[in-house]
Amino acid sequence: SQLGGTQFGNRGMTLEKELNETNKFYLETDQAVIHKKPTPIQVVQVDYPKRSAAVIKEAYYQQPSTTDYNGIYNGRYIDFEAKQTKNKTSLPFSNIHQHQVDHMRKIDDHGGICFFIIRFKLLNETFLLPIRPFIKVWDQQFEGNRKSLPYHYIKENGYLIPFTLQKKVDYLTVVDRVYFNGGDHNERRH
Amino acid sequence: SQLGGTQFGNRGMTLEKELNETNKFYLETDQAVIHKKPTPIQVVQVDYPKRSAAVIKEAYYQQPSTTDYNGIYNGRYIDFEAKQTKNKTSLPFSNIHQHQVDHMRKIDDHGGICFFIIRFKLLNETFLLPIRPFIKVWDQQFEGNRKSLPYHYIKENGYLIPFTLQKKVDYLTVVDRVYFNGGDHNERRH
Ligand SMILES: [Mg+2]
Ligand SMILES: [Mg+2]
Repeated sequence: SQLGGTQFGNRGMTLEKELNETNKFYLETDQAVIHKKPTPIQVVQVDYPKRSAAVIKEAYYQQPSTTDYNGIYNGRYIDFEAKQTKNKTSLPFSNIHQHQVDHMRKIDDHGGICFFIIRFKLLNETFLLPIRPFIKVWDQQFEGNRKSLPYHYIKENGYLIPFTLQKKVDYLTVVDRVYFNGGDHNERRH
Repeated sequence: SQLGGTQFGNRGMTLEKELNETNKFYLETDQAVIHKKPTPIQVVQVDYPKRSAAVIKEAYYQQPSTTDYNGIYNGRYIDFEAKQTKNKTSLPFSNIHQHQVDHMRKIDDHGGICFFIIRFKLLNETFLLPIRPFIKVWDQQFEGNRKSLPYHYIKENGYLIPFTLQKKVDYLTVVDRVYFNGGDHNERRH
């Protein structure tokens, strides 16, 4: 269970901020080098005032073509996407994009460690869901099935991520269990 | 030698564009998944016009805290920084930042493949220089030594990157030679 989650977890800090803080801790304690990629922005107009920095005057947010985070852990390439929802019963596919899933499938094919981090905000639970069980449900939507990932499926096929004060989303303890030391059989290297 | 370099290499295409094109080819032929990270931008003011996309009205370029490119190749984490210069005799350290070098050192420590891609524009030569010989010279600058990387040092400790029409900067052929199949002795895993 997620000890402390009720006490500290729900203070309005977003999942992204908590992940960035956790990654900073991993970096400072030399456990892993994992960073959030910058948000892609298309710059249209830039001013270059004299004696000061360039000012971007017109720009637009672009659709990311890959995932939120990547880096290296225990000599392995690691890549993941973070999603949170206020829904209590499922994660809607509405803000996950096909090219992101394609990217994640490729990472898995090339021997990388690839997963989603999914937070149910109102349940105060955060899961690591490996890419393979995700893809099973994702691909079924095109056969007319539901366009979301049920909570119970995530709970059964994913792993609850523990919470500590220094590691708000301590996903590497789960990565250790799933991808190293033999690992869970369905996520071993093929 | 760089066959075709004189014919096709110097048409004003930047190193970044050529690398992006090469990475696209690697991706499409399923050889590797390597992407340029978006340029980090600090957004200060955003307009949300009705019925159209958010417009960023004020923003500033930020100093990147890591490198230009990362991804996965042959199951290994790969990370590099690209630099070009019009100088013929050395690459000045002026636009390489300490935190970038710190990041690259960490990647090497964690078992990643890490290097610079350095182009001498006027010589029409592009080299892969592994992080370890780079750091030797970088660290010496603080003992009062030169604040640049001599061309002859790059030539001796680096590897000329071949050029083809589909792979304008075919650095993976060099990566194969340096980091795989035994590899050059000074770049083997420690
Ligand atoms: Mg996300
Ligand atoms: Mg660069």
